[in-house]
Amino acid sequence: MSDGKSGLQLRSLLKKSGELELSLVDVPTPEPANDEVVVHVEATPINPSDLGLLIGPADMSTAKVSGTRDAPVITAKMPEAALRMMAARLDQSLPVGNEGAGVVVRTGSSDAAKALMGKTVSMIGGAMYTQYRTIKVRDVMELPAGATPADGASWFVNPLTALGMTETMRRENHKALVHTAAASNLGQMLNKICIKDGIGLVNIVRSKEQADILHKIGAKHVVDSTAASFMEDLTGALVETGATIAFDAIGGGKLASQILTAMEIAANKTAKEYSRYGSSVFKQVYIYGSLDNRPTELTRAFGLTWSVSGWLLTPFLMKAGPEVNARMRKRVVDELTTTFASHYTATISLADALRPEIVAAYQRKTTGEKYLIDPSL
Amino acid sequence: MSDGKSGLQLRSLLKKSGELELSLVDVPTPEPANDEVVVHVEATPINPSDLGLLIGPADMSTAKVSGTRDAPVITAKMPEAALRMMAARLDQSLPVGNEGAGVVVRTGSSDAAKALMGKTVSMIGGAMYTQYRTIKVRDVMELPAGATPADGASWFVNPLTALGMTETMRRENHKALVHTAAASNLGQMLNKICIKDGIGLVNIVRSKEQADILHKIGAKHVVDSTAASFMEDLTGALVETGATIAFDAIGGGKLASQILTAMEIAANKTAKEYSRYGSSVFKQVYIYGSLDNRPTELTRAFGLTWSVSGWLLTPFLMKAGPEVNARMRKRVVDELTTTFASHYTATISLADALRPEIVAAYQRKTTGEKYLIDPSL
Repeated sequence: MSDGKSGLQLRSLLKKSGELELSLVDVPTPEPANDEVVVHVEATPINPSDLGLLIGPADMSTAKVSGTRDAPVITAKMPEAALRMMAARLDQSLPVGNEGAGVVVRTGSSDAAKALMGKTVSMIGGAMYTQYRTIKVRDVMELPAGATPADGASWFVNPLTALGMTETMRRENHKALVHTAAASNLGQMLNKICIKDGIGLVNIVRSKEQADILHKIGAKHVVDSTAASFMEDLTGALVETGATIAFDAIGGGKLASQILTAMEIAANKTAKEYSRYGSSVFKQVYIYGSLDNRPTELTRAFGLTWSVSGWLLTPFLMKAGPEVNARMRKRVVDELTTTFASHYTATISLADALRPEIVAAYQRKTTGEKYLIDPSL
Repeated sequence: MSDGKSGLQLRSLLKKSGELELSLVDVPTPEPANDEVVVHVEATPINPSDLGLLIGPADMSTAKVSGTRDAPVITAKMPEAALRMMAARLDQSLPVGNEGAGVVVRTGSSDAAKALMGKTVSMIGGAMYTQYRTIKVRDVMELPAGATPADGASWFVNPLTALGMTETMRRENHKALVHTAAASNLGQMLNKICIKDGIGLVNIVRSKEQADILHKIGAKHVVDSTAASFMEDLTGALVETGATIAFDAIGGGKLASQILTAMEIAANKTAKEYSRYGSSVFKQVYIYGSLDNRPTELTRAFGLTWSVSGWLLTPFLMKAGPEVNARMRKRVVDELTTTFASHYTATISLADALRPEIVAAYQRKTTGEKYLIDPSL
C-alpha cells in the first residue's frame, strides 16, 4: 500500500471519432472534507450494470491492446448508431464502478467521519474501480464485525435490486412474480428472499444445469425456456402461483411476449365469461437487463391489459422513499453473508480488468460468472 | 317498420370446430322493465373495436357464403392458435355492436323511461346490430333537438377515446402527445380537441394524402412515416411540443420503437449531463389498436425509462371515475356536430354487413373509411 496520496483509477473515454479507450490513470486522492472519508478499496464487482458505462455497445471484436503490462490500454470501435445516443459523454474520461468496499484510511474532521477510521465499509456512488476513494460518510455503510471487503463489495446493486423486485410486486398489487435468467447471482438471492418471505416465484432458466442450481437452493417453480413443454410448464406455474408481474434480464427476442401470453392463458383459465379484449387481469413485464441485444418482439396475443416497461434500481429507490430504503438496507446488512452472499469466478487486479481475454469473459455475462476487482492487488 | 315485437339481430358464433359463423337471427324484443326503453335502432357504426368480437383473427380468405339474400350466412376458419385464447366464447351465439342510436318506441313505467318516448337517443352497451334494442334508461342519452340518429350513432367510442387520450396525458403528467394513424375519424377528432384546448399534438400518418387531410383541418405537426426524413421530422416535432406520450393504433412493426427512440433523442438534446442508462425522462407508448397484426418490435435503444402498454377505453373510464366521465360526456353532447362529427363511407343494412365484399372493405380498416349500419333498412 502506498501513502494513499494518489492511486490508479480505471477510465472509460469515448472519443468523438467513435473510438472507445479504456485505461488506468494515476489520480491524486482528494483530501476528505469534514463529512468525508478516504477508503482504500479492496473489492469492487463488475456487474452487468457497470458494463453500460465501461464498454456499452462498443464492438469488442475490433479491440486493440497497447500500453504496458501494468498499465494496459484497450481501444475499440463504437458503432455509428450508438454514438448518436452518447453525445453527452463524448471526449470525457469517465471513472467506472457502482459499488465497492474497503478500509477507511483517512477521515475528515466530523465525529461521524472520525468514528469510521480503520473500519471496513461498503460504498455506493460510482468511480469504485480505483485504489483510493474519497466519499461522503452518508454513502458508506460500516460492515458487521468479521465481514471482509469481499463480503460487502456487492451489498448494494444485486441485493437492493432483488429486494426492489418483491417491493415493486407488492406496491403494484401483484401477489407473486416471475424472474428470467433466474440462476444468476441476483436470481439466487431472489429465491432466498422469496422462500424466506413466502412469496411465489416462477424461475425461468435456459438449461438443465441452471435449473439444478436453483432446485438445490430450494426453488419450487423452475421452468426451462429451451424445453418443448416450456409454454405449458410456464402456464402451469403461473396458475399455481398467480404471478402477474415479471422481471426480465434477457430483454431481446420473444421471451417477454411468451410470459405475457402465458399469463393471459392462465388468467383466462379462471375467467367466468368471455371478454373480447382479453382478460381484465393486469399483466406487467419489467425489462431490467439486456442479455439478449436483439429487439423485444411482442405478439400482442394477450389482450389489452398489459405493460412492458424498463426497470432501473435508482428511480425505484427514489420513488420508494427513505423509509423503504432504510428498511431494505438494514435487511441487506443483517443477511449479508446468508441471503445476500455473492460468489465470484475470480478476484482480479485493475490491470487484469483490461486484459482482452478477461474483458471478453465478463462481457459474455455468463450466468454464474462474476468478477471481483481488488484494486489493491 | 314492424310492430317491434321481434326483429333481426346480427350474431357471431365461434364453434368448437374452429368455424366462425356470422348470421342474422330473428329475436323477440324483450319487454322493457320499469327503468328500460325499447329503441328502434337506425344507426350503429362498425368500429375497429367491434371487429374483435365480430370477426377477430378469423381468416376471411376462407370465407364462404350461404343462406338467402335477405339472411346471408358467412362462415370462415379461425386459426388454431387464436382458438386457444377464445375458449370462453366457444359455441355461444353472441350479439355485436358497441354503440348506436335510434328512436324510443316503447317504454317502461318509470317517469324517466316515459319521458323518453318518441325521443332520438344514443346508446352504449353492446348488441346494437339489431332492429330493436331494449336498454336501461341510464345507458341512453337524449340527443339535442335536430340531431339525427346518424349524428349520434358514434357519440361514444371515438369521442370518448379521443378525450380519454388527452385526459390520460394530463393524469400521467405529460404535456403533449403523439398519435398514429392520425388521419382517421378518431385522429381528426383528436386534432380538433387539441387545437381547441391548446395541446401540442404530433400526428403520424402514412401518406401525403393523409397529411393533407390533417393540414386542412389545422393540424400543426404532421409527420409521414414513409418519408426518408421521418426520424428527423419526428424528433423535431417532439422537441418543439415536448410530447412524451403516444397513442398508437398500428401496434405491429417498428413504429412504437421509433417513437420511443425519437423521444429519447429529443430528451437527450436538452439533457445537461450524460446518463449511462439513458435520459430520466419517462416515455410512454399506449397501443390501443392493431392495424398492423405483426409483432411489435422494440429495439430498446431508448434507455430504461419507458413503458409500452395496452390502452382500452372501458378500464380508463372506470379508473377516471364518475366526475370525469360526466364532464367528458357533456362535452361530447355539446360538440356533437362540430368537434365530434363522424363521416361515413356508406350506410348499409344488416344483410349488407354480411356481404363478403363489404366485410372485406370494413375489415381492411382503411383510414377514413367507416361504415354505418341502419338496421331499419
